[in-house]
Amino acid sequence: MKKYCFGIDVGGTTVKCGLFTTEGEVLDKWEIRTRTEDNGSRILPDIAETIKEKISEKELNRDEIAGVGIGIPGPVNENGEVPCAVNLHWGYVNIEKDLSEMTGLTVKAGNDANVAALGEFWKGGGAGSHNMILVTLGTGVGGGIIINGRIVAGSHGAGGEIGHAHVEDSVTEPCNCGNCGCLEQMASATGIVRLAKEALASTDAPSLLRGQEISAKTVFDAVKENDAVAIQIAERFGTYLGKALSIFSTVVDPQVIVIGGGVSKAGPILLDYIIRPFRKYAFTPSKNTEFALATLGNDAGIFGAAKMVI
Amino acid sequence: MKKYCFGIDVGGTTVKCGLFTTEGEVLDKWEIRTRTEDNGSRILPDIAETIKEKISEKELNRDEIAGVGIGIPGPVNENGEVPCAVNLHWGYVNIEKDLSEMTGLTVKAGNDANVAALGEFWKGGGAGSHNMILVTLGTGVGGGIIINGRIVAGSHGAGGEIGHAHVEDSVTEPCNCGNCGCLEQMASATGIVRLAKEALASTDAPSLLRGQEISAKTVFDAVKENDAVAIQIAERFGTYLGKALSIFSTVVDPQVIVIGGGVSKAGPILLDYIIRPFRKYAFTPSKNTEFALATLGNDAGIFGAAKMVI
Repeated sequence: MKKYCFGIDVGGTTVKCGLFTTEGEVLDKWEIRTRTEDNGSRILPDIAETIKEKISEKELNRDEIAGVGIGIPGPVNENGEVPCAVNLHWGYVNIEKDLSEMTGLTVKAGNDANVAALGEFWKGGGAGSHNMILVTLGTGVGGGIIINGRIVAGSHGAGGEIGHAHVEDSVTEPCNCGNCGCLEQMASATGIVRLAKEALASTDAPSLLRGQEISAKTVFDAVKENDAVAIQIAERFGTYLGKALSIFSTVVDPQVIVIGGGVSKAGPILLDYIIRPFRKYAFTPSKNTEFALATLGNDAGIFGAAKMVI
Repeated sequence: MKKYCFGIDVGGTTVKCGLFTTEGEVLDKWEIRTRTEDNGSRILPDIAETIKEKISEKELNRDEIAGVGIGIPGPVNENGEVPCAVNLHWGYVNIEKDLSEMTGLTVKAGNDANVAALGEFWKGGGAGSHNMILVTLGTGVGGGIIINGRIVAGSHGAGGEIGHAHVEDSVTEPCNCGNCGCLEQMASATGIVRLAKEALASTDAPSLLRGQEISAKTVFDAVKENDAVAIQIAERFGTYLGKALSIFSTVVDPQVIVIGGGVSKAGPILLDYIIRPFRKYAFTPSKNTEFALATLGNDAGIFGAAKMVI
């Protein structure tokens, strides 16, 4: 009977670590530094080391450990292989095999956004559903698709990369991915700032946003104050995202769409601006798809990583 | 050891039936009439009857029959329930349970487009892949999504309903679904005729298409003759479809995209017009996703239905 599992979330500066029961209770949470030097060759040994230390410290019986799940900031294919993780300076790594050899434990690897989606599906905004789309609105737009409780990793490790759906022909400035007009350019925190600057430049109307630093937070704060220009920005943002989500729903028809990331701190009012265009453009059977805010914050990654090995 | 299975494809006028080996060899193929009278109440009993007759005729041992798969023209949810099948005048039917009671065999039900996708995945254009998008270009645009060998049915039975993705804001004429600007309105056989009429009305340029009845076939026949107006129509069609497929690929990242339906009889030249915009708009890891033409034609449904019970 397996009682415990580890959830690891590798970021550019820190590695978040969690020790869980297989029921999903957090027994311990800690962080180590991500040593990106030497092409990231120290990262997996450091993770193996901290897991071994935790097993000793907690006096865990190895036979009771289901394994180690790990989320990585880059594409991970269906076999748990990482063709390249640019942010970590890794080349090709068979992460499941390598970390398993170092720890003596079963290892499952996934893309960090997909793994966070699995976390929200298990214990967060999507708990109790079968099929879910997670959208993470931060500096970029991330995503993860869960079908029948499993991550859709994709044949090229690009499942759930919905931030790079093409949504706007008129954009000529390239996205980080090299294409132009990606959802990420319109609906991320950065995208909201872009829309805000365009809106403020297009009118002389007074606005709480004038003369202050524009961010997704200041825009939605102004929306809450009924600022007309801010509302117009929120509507444009919501139309891009709600329309895109209606298109994604014709593909996988989720039970629930969960919105997370820093922008989601704006709260339920954010959902209003996304849901209205979603309901307009969605195919009839999907029009009443549920929406929810993510609830696990930065812990979604360790929860989802742990869930991968259960 | 199960040796045989039945694949049933229910259409508005005929029910296609197939007896297969579990390896996918067709042992027999036949049709019965779809009796839509009395709210379709005769359809399942008729199917049960023809299956029983075939078992007698072929002297099959019931213990060697894996079951009956059935594709239905309407939404089928993950539990095999049909909330409504408008074309058949059915109300709510628990088709798996009802047909299983009538035949004494295991029954699995699916939406017909999804089931056809499973057929192409098993023995057609997607054979050998793990993840596939099927697009069927006929009077409408149908679709089916296969992930790890399984149909994505969706939480409201609308998985793979990609024909109803919103792709064009400027359309004011409603689609059959009630929304405006669906992919089906631009990229179906009917959509191609619409694009052709618009193109011919917008220019005085000579074209082989002038003075003849416009259809998807005549348009692609003219493309093969290097007709400039026809090429322009094909490019517009291909941009709608290729761009939409690039968006769908950010969700599920398929290994292969299979194009079927009547329009696909135009052959490989059709793929050229879809692939070019797809490669332009697709997220980098997915840019080289394979494309293939469907190969099973009208038999895709019975193949996929049979595969559901294996």
